[in-house]
Amino acid sequence: MQYIAASIAAGLAALAASYGNGQVISKALEGMARQPEASGTLRSTMFIGVGLIEAVPIMSIVVAFMLVLK
Amino acid sequence: MQYIAASIAAGLAALAASYGNGQVISKALEGMARQPEASGTLRSTMFIGVGLIEAVPIMSIVVAFMLVLK
Amino acid sequence: MQYIAASIAAGLAALAASYGNGQVISKALEGMARQPEASGTLRSTMFIGVGLIEAVPIMSIVVAFMLVLK
Amino acid sequence: MQYIAASIAAGLAALAASYGNGQVISKALEGMARQPEASGTLRSTMFIGVGLIEAVPIMSIVVAFMLVLK
Amino acid sequence: MQYIAASIAAGLAALAASYGNGQVISKALEGMARQPEASGTLRSTMFIGVGLIEAVPIMSIVVAFMLVLK
Amino acid sequence: MQYIAASIAAGLAALAASYGNGQVISKALEGMARQPEASGTLRSTMFIGVGLIEAVPIMSIVVAFMLVLK
Amino acid sequence: MQYIAASIAAGLAALAASYGNGQVISKALEGMARQPEASGTLRSTMFIGVGLIEAVPIMSIVVAFMLVLK
Amino acid sequence: MQYIAASIAAGLAALAASYGNGQVISKALEGMARQPEASGTLRSTMFIGVGLIEAVPIMSIVVAFMLVLK
Amino acid sequence: MQYIAASIAAGLAALAASYGNGQVISKALEGMARQPEASGTLRSTMFIGVGLIEAVPIMSIVVAFMLVLK
Amino acid sequence: MQYIAASIAAGLAALAASYGNGQVISKALEGMARQPEASGTLRSTMFIGVGLIEAVPIMSIVVAFMLVLK
Amino acid sequence: MQYIAASIAAGLAALAASYGNGQVISKALEGMARQPEASGTLRSTMFIGVGLIEAVPIMSIVVAFMLVLK
Amino acid sequence: MQYIAASIAAGLAALAASYGNGQVISKALEGMARQPEASGTLRSTMFIGVGLIEAVPIMSIVVAFMLVLK
Amino acid sequence: MQYIAASIAAGLAALAASYGNGQVISKALEGMARQPEASGTLRSTMFIGVGLIEAVPIMSIVVAFMLVLK
Amino acid sequence: MQYIAASIAAGLAALAASYGNGQVISKALEGMARQPEASGTLRSTMFIGVGLIEAVPIMSIVVAFMLVLK
Repeated sequence: MQYIAASIAAGLAALAASYGNGQVISKALEGMARQPEASGTLRSTMFIGVGLIEAVPIMSIVVAFMLVLK
Repeated sequence: MQYIAASIAAGLAALAASYGNGQVISKALEGMARQPEASGTLRSTMFIGVGLIEAVPIMSIVVAFMLVLK
Repeated sequence: MQYIAASIAAGLAALAASYGNGQVISKALEGMARQPEASGTLRSTMFIGVGLIEAVPIMSIVVAFMLVLK
Repeated sequence: MQYIAASIAAGLAALAASYGNGQVISKALEGMARQPEASGTLRSTMFIGVGLIEAVPIMSIVVAFMLVLK
Repeated sequence: MQYIAASIAAGLAALAASYGNGQVISKALEGMARQPEASGTLRSTMFIGVGLIEAVPIMSIVVAFMLVLK
Repeated sequence: MQYIAASIAAGLAALAASYGNGQVISKALEGMARQPEASGTLRSTMFIGVGLIEAVPIMSIVVAFMLVLK
Repeated sequence: MQYIAASIAAGLAALAASYGNGQVISKALEGMARQPEASGTLRSTMFIGVGLIEAVPIMSIVVAFMLVLK
Repeated sequence: MQYIAASIAAGLAALAASYGNGQVISKALEGMARQPEASGTLRSTMFIGVGLIEAVPIMSIVVAFMLVLK
Repeated sequence: MQYIAASIAAGLAALAASYGNGQVISKALEGMARQPEASGTLRSTMFIGVGLIEAVPIMSIVVAFMLVLK
Repeated sequence: MQYIAASIAAGLAALAASYGNGQVISKALEGMARQPEASGTLRSTMFIGVGLIEAVPIMSIVVAFMLVLK
Repeated sequence: MQYIAASIAAGLAALAASYGNGQVISKALEGMARQPEASGTLRSTMFIGVGLIEAVPIMSIVVAFMLVLK
Repeated sequence: MQYIAASIAAGLAALAASYGNGQVISKALEGMARQPEASGTLRSTMFIGVGLIEAVPIMSIVVAFMLVLK
Repeated sequence: MQYIAASIAAGLAALAASYGNGQVISKALEGMARQPEASGTLRSTMFIGVGLIEAVPIMSIVVAFMLVLK
Repeated sequence: MQYIAASIAAGLAALAASYGNGQVISKALEGMARQPEASGTLRSTMFIGVGLIEAVPIMSIVVAFMLVLK
């Protein structure tokens, strides 16, 4: 039972992180293509945003590892 | 049974945080690309917004940890 | 059984708060980027709105904690 | 069984209130950003609308508390 | 069994009322922001509309209370 | 078993009535905001439309009450 | 078992009638707001259309009543 | 078991007929509002279309009545 | 068991025929409203199209009748 | 069990054929309304397309008949 | 059990082929209506595309026949 | 049990290949209709793309055949 | 049980790879049709992108083969 | 049971990585086609983004392998 739980937690975390990162990075790429001179600001904000987004999914991955190794 | 519960809580929290953060940060990036001079205001509002959004998912992660460690 | 119930309540509360907050804060960022001079009014209204939105999800989190600690 | 029922009622109430409030408040912010001189009328109508929307979800939260404390 | 039934009725009523009210009130706010001089007509029509919309969900809440207190 | 049936009938009726009314009333508000001089015709047609829409959901509510009181 | 059947038939009929009527009446309101001089033709066609749409859902309600009273 | 079958057939028939009719009649209303002089052709084609659409759902209703009265 | 099967076949056939016919007839109405002089060609093509679309759902209805009368 | 299988195969075939045909025929009608002089080419291509689309659903109907008559 | 499997494979193959073919043929019709002089190139590419699309669904139909005749 | 598995693998492979191919080929047809002189480049890229897309679904079909013939 | 697992892994991998590849290749085709002189850069980036996308689905196919051959 | 868990984790990881990568790479291709001179910046940002996106799905694949080899 705990294996199913671990896979649900890991799978949803992967979906969540990919969705959020994909949205942010594609917006950053769109902004860079439209205004190449603002690419430094956009890239640094993109890194902060990716870091903030991955915080909760990585906790969910931690929950998954705790369940697998239990 | 409580492992399934923990994984549901953690997974939905990850989905929720990624969805909300992805929406806010991508709007901030879009705004920065359109008006680079307003990037300071946008970035500070973005940090407040990310903090407000992550409040409830982190409580849900806390519920998940309480269920795993029980 | 009550652990599943707690995780459903916590997870849906996280989804709900993130959806509502994400929508409101992104609209506020969009408005700020379009009219920087109205950013004070928008930010104060945004705080009120976030507070009003988080009222019901936090009650749902309370239900979840009551179910976990029972 | 009644714990599941309480969590369903609380979770759906949270989703419902966040969806309705998010839609109304974001429209109010959009209107304020477009016409700053109408922000008084919009804000008062927004408060009335939020109050009207939260009536039924709070009854649903009451149902949830009655089921938890039974 | 009747607790699940009560929570389904209450939760769907909350979703329904929030969806309908959110749609009507946001349209009214949009109309007010576009034509501030028609805000009296719009607000009175909005109140009538909210009353008409909440009729059936409140009957559904009544069904929920009858099932809880039975 | 009949309690679940009553709650499904009441909940779907609430969803249906809110969806239909929300759509009609918001279109009426949109029409009023665009042409204030046609608000009489629109409002009377809106009342007829709301009456026609609520006919079937109220029959469904009647089915729900018959199932609760049986 | 037949109570569940009656509630499914009644609920789907309510959803169907509200969806179809809401779509037709909102289009009629939209047409009236755009061309007020054609409101007679539109209103009479709207009544015919509502009658045609409600034919099958009312048969479904009849099925529901036959199942409840059996 | 056959009651559930009858309600599924009747409910899906109601959904299908309302969806198809709602789409056709709303397009006819839209066409009338745009070109009032073509309203005769549109209305006659609309009646033919509604007749053609309701053929299969009414057969499905017949299946439902055969299952109820069996 | 075969009653459920018959109702699924009949219900899906009704949904399918209504969806396809609704799409085709509404496009024909849209074409007629835009170019009234091409209404003869459009109407004859519409009849052919409706005939071609209803071929497979009517076979599915035949399957349903064979299952009911077995 | 094989009756359910037959109804699933027949129902999905009906949905599939109606979806594909509805899309193709409505595009053909749209093309005819825009360029009446190309209606011969469009109609012949439409017949080929409908034939190609119905190939696989009719095989699925054959599977359904084989399951019913077994 | 293998009958259900055959019907799932056949039904999904029908859905898949109809979706893909419908999309390709409708694009080809759209292209022909916009540029009648390119209809030869479009029609030959359309035939190649339909052949490539139907390869995998026909393998799935083969799987279905193998399961029925086993 | 392995028959259900084979049909799921084959059906999802058919859906996946049809979705991907349909998207690519329809874009190629759209590009050809807009720029007929680039049809050679587009057609060769289309063939490469179709080959790359069908790689993974054909592996899934192989899994299905291995499960059927086991 | 492991056959179902293998088919789920293979089917989702096929869906995932087709979705991602279809999106990337269709964008590349769209870009080539709009700017034929950039087709070299686009095609090489497209190959890199397809390679990066297929990495994770092929690992999932590997998981499926390990489960089938176990 | 752990095989199902492994396949869910692997399948969702494949879906997640393909969705995120497909979105990012297609945006990069779109940006390159619109501004060929910014293709260096876009390509390097695209590689960083793909690396950041694939981090969490690869952890989920690791969870899947741990479950298969256990």
